[in-house]
Amino acid sequence: MAPTSTHQVLILSRHADSYRRHVEAAALPDLDIVSAADVAALPETAPRSDLVFGEPSLIAQVLPRLPAVQWIQATWAGVEPLLNPALRRDYLLTNARGVFGVLMCEYVFGYLLAHERRIVEKYASQKLNKWDTKAPGTLHGKTIGLLGVGTIGAALARTGKHFGMIVKGYTRASRDCRDVDEYFHTGEEARFAADLDYVVCIVPNTVATRRLIDREFLAALPARAVIVNPGRGSVIDHDALRAALSGGRLAAAVLDVFETEPLPADDPLWLMPNVFVTSHTAALSLPADIAPLFIDNYRRLVSGQPLKYRVDFTLEY
Amino acid sequence: MAPTSTHQVLILSRHADSYRRHVEAAALPDLDIVSAADVAALPETAPRSDLVFGEPSLIAQVLPRLPAVQWIQATWAGVEPLLNPALRRDYLLTNARGVFGVLMCEYVFGYLLAHERRIVEKYASQKLNKWDTKAPGTLHGKTIGLLGVGTIGAALARTGKHFGMIVKGYTRASRDCRDVDEYFHTGEEARFAADLDYVVCIVPNTVATRRLIDREFLAALPARAVIVNPGRGSVIDHDALRAALSGGRLAAAVLDVFETEPLPADDPLWLMPNVFVTSHTAALSLPADIAPLFIDNYRRLVSGQPLKYRVDFTLEY
Repeated sequence: MAPTSTHQVLILSRHADSYRRHVEAAALPDLDIVSAADVAALPETAPRSDLVFGEPSLIAQVLPRLPAVQWIQATWAGVEPLLNPALRRDYLLTNARGVFGVLMCEYVFGYLLAHERRIVEKYASQKLNKWDTKAPGTLHGKTIGLLGVGTIGAALARTGKHFGMIVKGYTRASRDCRDVDEYFHTGEEARFAADLDYVVCIVPNTVATRRLIDREFLAALPARAVIVNPGRGSVIDHDALRAALSGGRLAAAVLDVFETEPLPADDPLWLMPNVFVTSHTAALSLPADIAPLFIDNYRRLVSGQPLKYRVDFTLEY
Repeated sequence: MAPTSTHQVLILSRHADSYRRHVEAAALPDLDIVSAADVAALPETAPRSDLVFGEPSLIAQVLPRLPAVQWIQATWAGVEPLLNPALRRDYLLTNARGVFGVLMCEYVFGYLLAHERRIVEKYASQKLNKWDTKAPGTLHGKTIGLLGVGTIGAALARTGKHFGMIVKGYTRASRDCRDVDEYFHTGEEARFAADLDYVVCIVPNTVATRRLIDREFLAALPARAVIVNPGRGSVIDHDALRAALSGGRLAAAVLDVFETEPLPADDPLWLMPNVFVTSHTAALSLPADIAPLFIDNYRRLVSGQPLKYRVDFTLEY
């Protein structure tokens, strides 16, 4: 890929038209664009693409038919479909990062404040004409635990400090976020969980994070704790979670992601009063936010700079 | 009140016991303490009190029986009962300020985020087993208008900037909060209201603020706007508000205060789907937060320094 060669990007996304408009507007040098909103509509020239920009679930289906691929930019943070061991890994994979912090903060702190201020409960009282003077709680002085401190975790830590919270972070190895008051690593799960008011799961789906929130972890949390999961469904043992919630050993759970989506209609989580199901909408990938990642990385590519947000196939993120 | 004389404070509050414990724990010099939880239980020695610390509604009832009073520290921000023209004003009045910013931020941003994230609506969908993927909104880039920029307004402005909002401020004259992007004053109400997504009323109850949010102000707001009122009920013309809400000329209202409290059972506001009644709980006066104001001001008094948060009887705040 010498700087002067012409590249061809295949845009493969449900929002292909919107992404195409954003990429065209950037007038990137030496770039041909082909696009499709679905794998069934792949253009004839697609196999010539050395670049792909799109949704991992769609790209994984056609990767064997794209022999020229050298770089894939995913529109999502999660790239699980491309980590399927049956697929090739001899290309550069970059994912979407650094753009979800704003929406994730609004999601997480929206539900944290709703819990403290009893927003749903007070609205129910109101519909019974009840002047409900029950005192609300406060985030100030409470403790939030972040399972994962990447760019999203750092944004959550900063907002936690803004609201006067104590911030604990659980990471594989990193300890470089200055808004985290105390770090914990593998083997320290029980100490991490011990005094949390809130725990937020924002780790990627990897071998190391699967079922990280299991019966033992839940038992280590105080009964007043609230779990928020806008990350990956696989991180939580949902059987153990349902048992903790119905047994009063956990105050509430705010769940955006599940191992099966949509959440099956007969799942008891739907009707538990202390569960909030948000249907994988915590931080949607908006073309206006995501297209600049491809545009910036393409400029890096043609000027010989390293690409941002590269996925390590071994670490799985 | 020479520094060496002995003072007597009358603590008059529903929470008199708690306030008394806090004040006693401070071991203030040259201070006798008497207290009562209600006006009917006023101690015999109360008339000798030169200081009073308590709730304006209770103090106003007994003020004529307290001839020695030279300083009153209110436990509330609102001192309307003491502004009754029939009562004497020949003493120093200080109110509670600087302590409500944290709770007010959590209240206001709790409801702003609940609105953007459709928290109540999504919980209702969930109870119908509906995988509701409707996209939430975001505070980022939205505009918040603060009616009043005192210590609470400054805290709200700072949190608004934290969430990437544009902050407009409406004040009598002040323009010293650096988190306010643009200031407006008397006569500029329509320009202030013109492009707001949110308007928060935190002005005191004065002649100048009564019915500030009237039919005209409401007509100047965009139909997407949400009103939040944790300040004073008198600031809003509730007839005009009900009409705007039921006519679709306003998205929602979050109301903590009313001219008659509790809100009368037959008020249509109770059952309007886009109204949130929070029953005067936005920022409760907690003894642990308020007692330090009296303690600090008492130390200032005996050391001859000016007291903090003095109320101007002419300005009414």
